[in-house]
Amino acid sequence: MIDNPRSPRVRAVAKLAKRAAREETGFFLVEGPQAVAEALSFHFELVIELYLTRSALDRYTDIAQAAVDAGVDVETVSDHVLETMADTVTPQGVIAVCDLLDVPLDRALHGAPQLVAVCVAVADPGNAGTVVRVADAAGADAVVLAGDTVDPHNGKAVRASTGSVFHLPIARERDAKLVVDACRGAGLATLVADAHGELNLHDPGVAPLLAGAVAWIFGGEAHGVPATVAERADHRVRVPIHGRAESLNLATAAAVCLYASVGARRLRSAPDE
Amino acid sequence: MIDNPRSPRVRAVAKLAKRAAREETGFFLVEGPQAVAEALSFHFELVIELYLTRSALDRYTDIAQAAVDAGVDVETVSDHVLETMADTVTPQGVIAVCDLLDVPLDRALHGAPQLVAVCVAVADPGNAGTVVRVADAAGADAVVLAGDTVDPHNGKAVRASTGSVFHLPIARERDAKLVVDACRGAGLATLVADAHGELNLHDPGVAPLLAGAVAWIFGGEAHGVPATVAERADHRVRVPIHGRAESLNLATAAAVCLYASVGARRLRSAPDE
Repeated sequence: MIDNPRSPRVRAVAKLAKRAAREETGFFLVEGPQAVAEALSFHFELVIELYLTRSALDRYTDIAQAAVDAGVDVETVSDHVLETMADTVTPQGVIAVCDLLDVPLDRALHGAPQLVAVCVAVADPGNAGTVVRVADAAGADAVVLAGDTVDPHNGKAVRASTGSVFHLPIARERDAKLVVDACRGAGLATLVADAHGELNLHDPGVAPLLAGAVAWIFGGEAHGVPATVAERADHRVRVPIHGRAESLNLATAAAVCLYASVGARRLRSAPDE
Repeated sequence: MIDNPRSPRVRAVAKLAKRAAREETGFFLVEGPQAVAEALSFHFELVIELYLTRSALDRYTDIAQAAVDAGVDVETVSDHVLETMADTVTPQGVIAVCDLLDVPLDRALHGAPQLVAVCVAVADPGNAGTVVRVADAAGADAVVLAGDTVDPHNGKAVRASTGSVFHLPIARERDAKLVVDACRGAGLATLVADAHGELNLHDPGVAPLLAGAVAWIFGGEAHGVPATVAERADHRVRVPIHGRAESLNLATAAAVCLYASVGARRLRSAPDE
């Protein structure tokens, strides 16, 4: 039982809320029973240490047992220690320290991917996490966080993904133009979601493109995809705005685009159903 | 120049952050230059009072002029007074007091609507506001907030809508079953977005249904649409989940469903394009 919130170990865990500490140590925090259970189910090899309060240990015996079975170092801690460690207000008594989960770009794009989501310069961690969740739901093969995009190990990004960060490969690459080229090299048509794009997502002529192997490229809400990146892609596609709204937000635009690809495939594969 | 933050007038404005005060007075707060400009452009008759700091008055002369032209009572206030009035941390020096904007249900559904978004028991104001924004973008004719759904005049809902609360009619009705019946009476097929729905959104056989006049019914993220309401609707439609994500969040699911209707119409109207 660890009960001193000022112990070096507790401080080291708490520091992982900051990007610099994550980059230095190679670890990040996974908070709350749902996310920790997903980590243990899908990537137990990443889970290094599990901390639970006494009451969480009683409540989440399945999580603790799965951790023990996976060879994870399991420790009980006082409520105060858990609060000190946590980045979240309510981690429900459960925190895991995990190895960083991102993979190299070439591994993320390995093996003829059919659908990839790329974020360029997305600063908001909640938005980035939601895009990972949507990409997972749409059956994407990978997510690439390019340019100045937020760290996927940020606590808010992990929470917004509701476990999806553990479900599909996530790569990081600062050079967004290199990402466009790598996607093309992997056989993907590169489509930038762009309010002023030359193609309309709902133009029937665009459907065959959407039904093929596609990398969708999304930008931050304020400035979109940088022009130098957008120019390098094969096409710029606009989600049509029919009302008076100026735009969609990033997560909803990504959902519409990724699911447009999913729907186009379904129509192609079963035209007479 | 109003510079006493404890004056009755300032207190009365600040109180509008609370639902009870809004219901009692029939007024709500619109904060920030963008939202206030939208209110003046689309519903100047709702705008009663405009408060600006001295620096905001210098910066947003067009807004102040539009307000004067619309017969709005314009007042300059000290920074401290504006902060006291504001529900937001950064209203950028601009706040308007407006009449509540919701309309009766029969008015929202008047005149053969083609696309309506209904929220049932959506508690989170950010989610509700984002659904209004998405509905606006998709060209919906109206939004109905049914059951225990959050007040659209909530500051977070107004902000998340990025002005869209002023772009299309919004009705409130506590009886969600009555809303289903009213939508049907207005000639709309009633479709509940439901993870376990009997229809798959991407089934080609569903496209003709989506291309018709449709009311999409969305529930809160935790519990979805209540069973008694879902049963009353014509169909329950699932957004297919292809990966390992458990679900989409409300706003992204609403975006996929509403835009599926938009896309189905486009295909119907231009099959040979």
